[in-house]
Amino acid sequence: MKKIATLFAAAFVGVSAFAQQALWGGAQVESPVINEDGTVTFRYQAPKAVKVTVSGDFLPTQVIDTPFGKFEGPGVAELKEGKNGVWEYTTDFKVAPEMYNYTFNVDGLNLIDNNNMWVNRDVASLTSAFIMPGGRADLYTIQDVPHGTVSKVWYDSAVAGFDRRLSVYTPAGYNPCGKTRYPVLYVLHGIGGDEDAWLEQGRAAQILDNLIASGQAKPMIVVFTNGNISQEAAPGQNSTGYVRPTMQLPKTMEGTFETSFPEIVKFIDANYKTIAKKQSRAICGLSMGGFHTLYISLNYPDMFNYSGMFSAAIGVDGQQMCPMYENFDAKLATYFSKKPALLWIGCGKTDFLYKSNIDFMAKMDANGQPYKYMETEGGHIWRNWRIYLSEFVPLLFK
Amino acid sequence: MKKIATLFAAAFVGVSAFAQQALWGGAQVESPVINEDGTVTFRYQAPKAVKVTVSGDFLPTQVIDTPFGKFEGPGVAELKEGKNGVWEYTTDFKVAPEMYNYTFNVDGLNLIDNNNMWVNRDVASLTSAFIMPGGRADLYTIQDVPHGTVSKVWYDSAVAGFDRRLSVYTPAGYNPCGKTRYPVLYVLHGIGGDEDAWLEQGRAAQILDNLIASGQAKPMIVVFTNGNISQEAAPGQNSTGYVRPTMQLPKTMEGTFETSFPEIVKFIDANYKTIAKKQSRAICGLSMGGFHTLYISLNYPDMFNYSGMFSAAIGVDGQQMCPMYENFDAKLATYFSKKPALLWIGCGKTDFLYKSNIDFMAKMDANGQPYKYMETEGGHIWRNWRIYLSEFVPLLFK
Repeated sequence: MKKIATLFAAAFVGVSAFAQQALWGGAQVESPVINEDGTVTFRYQAPKAVKVTVSGDFLPTQVIDTPFGKFEGPGVAELKEGKNGVWEYTTDFKVAPEMYNYTFNVDGLNLIDNNNMWVNRDVASLTSAFIMPGGRADLYTIQDVPHGTVSKVWYDSAVAGFDRRLSVYTPAGYNPCGKTRYPVLYVLHGIGGDEDAWLEQGRAAQILDNLIASGQAKPMIVVFTNGNISQEAAPGQNSTGYVRPTMQLPKTMEGTFETSFPEIVKFIDANYKTIAKKQSRAICGLSMGGFHTLYISLNYPDMFNYSGMFSAAIGVDGQQMCPMYENFDAKLATYFSKKPALLWIGCGKTDFLYKSNIDFMAKMDANGQPYKYMETEGGHIWRNWRIYLSEFVPLLFK
Repeated sequence: MKKIATLFAAAFVGVSAFAQQALWGGAQVESPVINEDGTVTFRYQAPKAVKVTVSGDFLPTQVIDTPFGKFEGPGVAELKEGKNGVWEYTTDFKVAPEMYNYTFNVDGLNLIDNNNMWVNRDVASLTSAFIMPGGRADLYTIQDVPHGTVSKVWYDSAVAGFDRRLSVYTPAGYNPCGKTRYPVLYVLHGIGGDEDAWLEQGRAAQILDNLIASGQAKPMIVVFTNGNISQEAAPGQNSTGYVRPTMQLPKTMEGTFETSFPEIVKFIDANYKTIAKKQSRAICGLSMGGFHTLYISLNYPDMFNYSGMFSAAIGVDGQQMCPMYENFDAKLATYFSKKPALLWIGCGKTDFLYKSNIDFMAKMDANGQPYKYMETEGGHIWRNWRIYLSEFVPLLFK
């Protein structure tokens, strides 16, 4: 065995990363490190660098001035160079329990942490991730509880004209041939996202595992759709188009995806042990997915009993491009006349969509239409969407 | 709708990538571009850079001199700076059909292509990927054929003492409650890899979809195990350990994983529509997984009828650390006495394990023990492992 181990070490050291299956190339730099005192240390090896910074949502936010106005963005901290060109920064504060994302910037280049193998893709950006355990963040970690199964499933979309992929979470104990049937929650991503988004940045499988295991949520099937109807699946799982989306994808937020939703529900009901009725169906989504959630709920008022709009990309008016968006007020009245169990709205105080959501709620207030609202700190960020999902799911199917 | 689109554009431009759900930040640089003449163009925006190179297996390999000896590595080409700090390189040759991986190097920093959203993780390295279509590479792409389902499933490992994750491919048309039962192929990764490796770099789901659709392979269930028994699952799916593995993982290649294999087979047979007998079971693996394949096949000679060793990390002797590795010759004789349908070996001419594999085959030749061998160009690389899987799978269960 010694011989084999030495062979491996020899082959892997000094050989470029990907043609050989490189494991141990480069210096051993540990990053990030969660220190015992609750601070976190970040390191990056860049011997020739002039300036190295780390940017992430573990730092206090800062306001960024852009030609389009002021926006809230993640804070930035400078690393200092130490031995062997390893740059380092340790927070001067205890990092609160949460899941965080960060990137380094080395002389103007944005980089992920090449010593941290937990990398998430969100739309067209890759970031490094870590969790400071404790509190709500424990919902986002793998705990010693029964785990559900996450499947990547293809369905034949008549609306799109080709097969498309979605992700399906079945809870621990799910038996595809058993007698137990489950309610279904449909979870929608934001613009540019895909069927992986909620499972990566959203930690949805962990949230569901943990809420179900603790009895806070009912066991349920959860379906993560791909809301870009022109797309088959996430990057690398498409027949074409690996490159970065250069602008809003075709057929986004113009009604086609929403119109296709019944075929998704039909597919799930045909292939999983669902309770195939309104009382046992919920839908929610973030940003564009919140917009989709609203219009799907209004246009198919007999389909979902629970709807959750997370930082929803809604305007009270202005959607006139397809029949799905027409006659909004009448559809809203019809929707409420059918007495849905829950319309839930979550928004951050500094979200650029805050006013749109407040306006929408004012409209419902004026009409005596009931909803629940959760307001959080911060803006249009994944931290809020994980919180909203964690708050919404326990309210379902009770 | 105009209003909403403008809001999005405003929110996403100029705001840092990950706290906001950034989509359209930075310049629009298209990379990689497969040109009509069969060349490929790579671009990277780095206005301050002094030197930018691209390294990848689309370039002719080069020999790298290391303290451990000479190794074959991917070639390197220089980009030239153009407008707006966008560096560019176009191959001066037609790139042959294949799946390729590449990274940029900007003034000493290895970087993925931030304009290409198809990124694969292999062990502790991230690389950008693209496919030049045609020929064998068409097996690796999403074709207009029925697609199987890929599930991430947790099983209770008595040997490990905790739940562990594996990936399961069920072929198109698989009905968990139907009458049709399927043979099962177990596919094992290399050292430092995990249950995602074959599905990312290995394109195993695409290879299976395409071979099954064309009738070249029988429909089968395929199980991708995690061979690091000290680990629950891939990075980010573990309860601990997001950082880069600093050395060989504990309990690697010392028999524990191999000893645990029957519990995996038992779990799969209990939960899927398998044909639960030797005639309908196959196992294969790359590098460390080839080593595992050999010892599992020898120690459980009634379990698998087909075994595939891809660039297997074997030595003819020297494995004495656990009972699994003892009495090799006697076990080999017993294995062959039970007349397995196929022992298949694939190795690249420049693989650092080439001699070990040649020696092993010489030993079998001396004993009159039958096997099939495929020798390819190149070394210890994913291109070869995709080829070996594509060649091995059509031979199974016939």
